[in-house]
Amino acid sequence: MLTYDFAKAQGPLYEYIYQCIKDDIMEGNLRQGEKLPSKRSFAKNNGISTITIQNAYDQLISEGYLYTIPQKGYYVAKLEGMKKVQRESSLSLHINMPEGRASYEVDLSDNRMNPALFPFSIWAKVLRRIISAQSGELMETSPAGGIRELRVAIAEHLKSFRGMLVDPDQIVVGAGTEYLYGLLVQLLGNKRQYCVENPGYRKIVQVYRQYHISCKYADLDEKGMTFEGLCATGADIAHISPNHHFPTGITMPAGRRYEILAWANEREGRYIIEDDYDSEFRLNGKPIPTLFSMDACEKVIYMNTFSKSLTPTIRISYMVLPVHLINRFYRELSFYACTVSNFEQYTLAAFIRQGYFEKHINRMRLYYSRQRKKMMETIRKSKLNTVCEIMENDSGLHFLIQVKTDKVDEEILRALREKGIRINALSEFFFTPSERKHCFIINYSNVDMEKAGKACDIFYQIMME
Amino acid sequence: MLTYDFAKAQGPLYEYIYQCIKDDIMEGNLRQGEKLPSKRSFAKNNGISTITIQNAYDQLISEGYLYTIPQKGYYVAKLEGMKKVQRESSLSLHINMPEGRASYEVDLSDNRMNPALFPFSIWAKVLRRIISAQSGELMETSPAGGIRELRVAIAEHLKSFRGMLVDPDQIVVGAGTEYLYGLLVQLLGNKRQYCVENPGYRKIVQVYRQYHISCKYADLDEKGMTFEGLCATGADIAHISPNHHFPTGITMPAGRRYEILAWANEREGRYIIEDDYDSEFRLNGKPIPTLFSMDACEKVIYMNTFSKSLTPTIRISYMVLPVHLINRFYRELSFYACTVSNFEQYTLAAFIRQGYFEKHINRMRLYYSRQRKKMMETIRKSKLNTVCEIMENDSGLHFLIQVKTDKVDEEILRALREKGIRINALSEFFFTPSERKHCFIINYSNVDMEKAGKACDIFYQIMME
Repeated sequence: MLTYDFAKAQGPLYEYIYQCIKDDIMEGNLRQGEKLPSKRSFAKNNGISTITIQNAYDQLISEGYLYTIPQKGYYVAKLEGMKKVQRESSLSLHINMPEGRASYEVDLSDNRMNPALFPFSIWAKVLRRIISAQSGELMETSPAGGIRELRVAIAEHLKSFRGMLVDPDQIVVGAGTEYLYGLLVQLLGNKRQYCVENPGYRKIVQVYRQYHISCKYADLDEKGMTFEGLCATGADIAHISPNHHFPTGITMPAGRRYEILAWANEREGRYIIEDDYDSEFRLNGKPIPTLFSMDACEKVIYMNTFSKSLTPTIRISYMVLPVHLINRFYRELSFYACTVSNFEQYTLAAFIRQGYFEKHINRMRLYYSRQRKKMMETIRKSKLNTVCEIMENDSGLHFLIQVKTDKVDEEILRALREKGIRINALSEFFFTPSERKHCFIINYSNVDMEKAGKACDIFYQIMME
Repeated sequence: MLTYDFAKAQGPLYEYIYQCIKDDIMEGNLRQGEKLPSKRSFAKNNGISTITIQNAYDQLISEGYLYTIPQKGYYVAKLEGMKKVQRESSLSLHINMPEGRASYEVDLSDNRMNPALFPFSIWAKVLRRIISAQSGELMETSPAGGIRELRVAIAEHLKSFRGMLVDPDQIVVGAGTEYLYGLLVQLLGNKRQYCVENPGYRKIVQVYRQYHISCKYADLDEKGMTFEGLCATGADIAHISPNHHFPTGITMPAGRRYEILAWANEREGRYIIEDDYDSEFRLNGKPIPTLFSMDACEKVIYMNTFSKSLTPTIRISYMVLPVHLINRFYRELSFYACTVSNFEQYTLAAFIRQGYFEKHINRMRLYYSRQRKKMMETIRKSKLNTVCEIMENDSGLHFLIQVKTDKVDEEILRALREKGIRINALSEFFFTPSERKHCFIINYSNVDMEKAGKACDIFYQIMME
């Protein structure tokens, strides 16, 4: 007969009994096939109710530790595998979480969003209205490409802002550009050769590598990816940012664009992925027309994101696919649920449609163009100016400085970090050994100018040491 | 000299001039290398300001249609590739968007969320508080695994609700379970054999297929995936839902669990993916302990989602990785940004921490258990009851009915659809020809009982025809 010390019970009594019996089974005190006392006698002997025992037995049955034979009673189940499974962990591994981003006195390596600039109250207001007016839609499954309202809003934005004529049904919305890169590989296949810009954005290569694609690298000249470089890679797919290359800032001129388009037209299965990640921040003049708009042969896939224009912490990017590829997407990949929550899709759609997005962009452009001006003035007023040249093209959230020095880039970066200044060198963005030395990237969007002035002086001192 | 009809200009004049010159270049009226009129003479001849011409020329330069030689003037750029690029599309493809889900009078094929049950006002209130109190954090990049607040809240929920002891740093949050399946393949590799349950959830196989994995299928007996079936596949990775199998509803008993765990322990590189997609909705008794909790050898990957417990339209799922795998995740995959927006991560974290999630689940369980009872009563009261048997196990949001009939499943389903009733047969969820015939899945969560009663009668009539 089972006897347990009920004084030890904490919480519901049936749970205690359940745990005691389970422990006895696992420790072998109750053998497999052994009959348990009947509910009634067990209850009576211990002065507790039958229903308590019933609950404990029921739980053990539903977990498979006991089984019952009607009219006969309860038995311990066969648990053959149990002996083969280690009960106590012999492993006591340590979790190595990557350290958070170190904090620097002056950080020019990153365009972190200034929280004061995000339109929180409008965003919250728009969401509140959506919740009260469209709660039904919020619970309806989104199409794989995103809800239609958002795709229509994006198409209208692309028309007025980028001069692009796009059917909303060509648009696919997803939780970040990296996610969309992955979808594209699934759509185009990983047996093809992919070619990226050298230097370029390292994450593109990291994502492609996850799909077992080893990217080819094509060098750039002052007009962007060279036609000869692209041809030499033997690639089928060219992933480029012709409107504002990261990190050099190059805008690909029309002549080169037509060359690259002609390359894509030469052979079936060739595509160009046009990554237009910060097109909203061309600070002067009209925006440069997209390669997508110049293409009439369904060769260009256009990608953009709200990470730069809104905030990277709301994960919404999109791509515009040529018609035959959007058809393939819905044929082959529409089993995937859209990765962006309906709440944020509807909020963003209304935010764009009601003109808030345009206002926000205009405000940000003004802010960034002032920051840019201040940052350039700060450099020009500092001693650093005597040994560096600013290279810029009125676009995006960064510019470059070329420094005259004999020092090695890594040394300079290390010395700067020791003084609390974080900055990237252009050479860090090359996939092959680079000859572009002593060129540094100034991400100015969220920098305190007083600190930036001191940082310029420190930079100069390091050069002179 | 260029002459354009300025009366036709709409919008800014410089844009009109820019477009006219661009058109002339593209149509060959302005030849490559040809010199353009000086800004001054062009302006004077047309009675417009030099600055307007300057702006038009600047835009054409920045796009690469013109170039300038200082002190000499403006020239049309070389655009060799242009002739090779088709200008007018010869393609006029039609976009084949998948049709929206057809609407049925009675839909038992899907557990669509009833909008009236989602706690909109609390969700909105929690988000509003987050926006006013944590706007800084909302703009800070989330770690790849998700923000710590949310991971801590999930770990506490797992402890109190599932009896699982989990370090928050073992948790990876992502935009939906399908996304996490993809991450897992990247983590475990696609050269391994993956095995799924037959019958089972078709999407798992579709996602794996995208990563060039052809899944093996292991049959089930009344205890779930069989040990022999699993061994016969030669698989390294078993993807199972031991706590409530979809669609059969089987709960794997302890004995079978130990067998499967022992299988995983036999060889390095073997893993079990435990998909616990609707564990919150076990309606009676304590929840069944997870396989993850029974494993002391780092063999089980636990997955769960807020799709069932909150709504599928907020895309948040998570997985709990064994320590050595979470370390691998941060080493190899932490370049990926977390796919869930900070706004929703912080909102959900507070929603759980402040007890709203538990309240919501309790409310939903009560609602579902009433719906279940009503649905079973409805069947029992109808004529359908004379030819069917209800098979249920107090868990999840569906149960099965086994119908006595000689008809073919597909015929029954078609006849039902013609009468406005949508339902799935168990046979549809088999990956191989199935012998489990005439078994149907009743998803009752959002059904009008009056209509359901009529549907049962129609079902009966179809059986009798």
